[in-house]
Amino acid sequence: MTITPVNLQQKLSLFSQPWSPKIIAQLNDYQIKLAKIEGEFTWHAHPETDELFLVLSGEMTLHFREAAVTLKAGELCVVPRGVEHKPTAQSECAILLIEPAGTLNTGGAASPHQPTTGEWI
Amino acid sequence: MTITPVNLQQKLSLFSQPWSPKIIAQLNDYQIKLAKIEGEFTWHAHPETDELFLVLSGEMTLHFREAAVTLKAGELCVVPRGVEHKPTAQSECAILLIEPAGTLNTGGAASPHQPTTGEWI
Repeated sequence: MTITPVNLQQKLSLFSQPWSPKIIAQLNDYQIKLAKIEGEFTWHAHPETDELFLVLSGEMTLHFREAAVTLKAGELCVVPRGVEHKPTAQSECAILLIEPAGTLNTGGAASPHQPTTGEWI
Repeated sequence: MTITPVNLQQKLSLFSQPWSPKIIAQLNDYQIKLAKIEGEFTWHAHPETDELFLVLSGEMTLHFREAAVTLKAGELCVVPRGVEHKPTAQSECAILLIEPAGTLNTGGAASPHQPTTGEWI
């Protein structure tokens, strides 16, 4: 059995493409993903699951249809299943996501962004 | 619908007792917990679930029967289900845990530490 530590900054150094989540760990059927975000993502929802956002550096805003929440480094929130949201960041922001393996970043919504369930780095 | 950001440092300021995990968020049937650890915990395993440790400040060592892994701030690892482990920290270390709601810190092993599934803060 080999258990290897995963260093968040080292993993973040491996990619730069925004809105392209990378998988860094798996816990049962959940995955921990890192992403860099900048600009606006697509309005979408995940009908089948909650989704956790933790900001590692920078600042992001999660827009909801009737509210918005700004998260700074060291802050997290959970978007409940089925709730429409649009992640945005004015400048590059690094985030950690927790969600079930196979969760599609776009929630299946039409999007100019590449739909992906993430790739391992 | 109100979604409130959770600030990790603010939550960490609310308690000081070591080996007493506090729940700060829930994602489906999983919980995000914070804990402060110092000294040695009890050898135990969780036969039913993996468990994720992320170090927020300080340094911890996860002992396994045939190996050990040291985690510094910004590093995480996943202990697979059923694997015996003993968390230790030479000085105070703040960690974030991800595991299913209801997971007992001691895994049910006899321990001088208070068995708990965590309390919300």
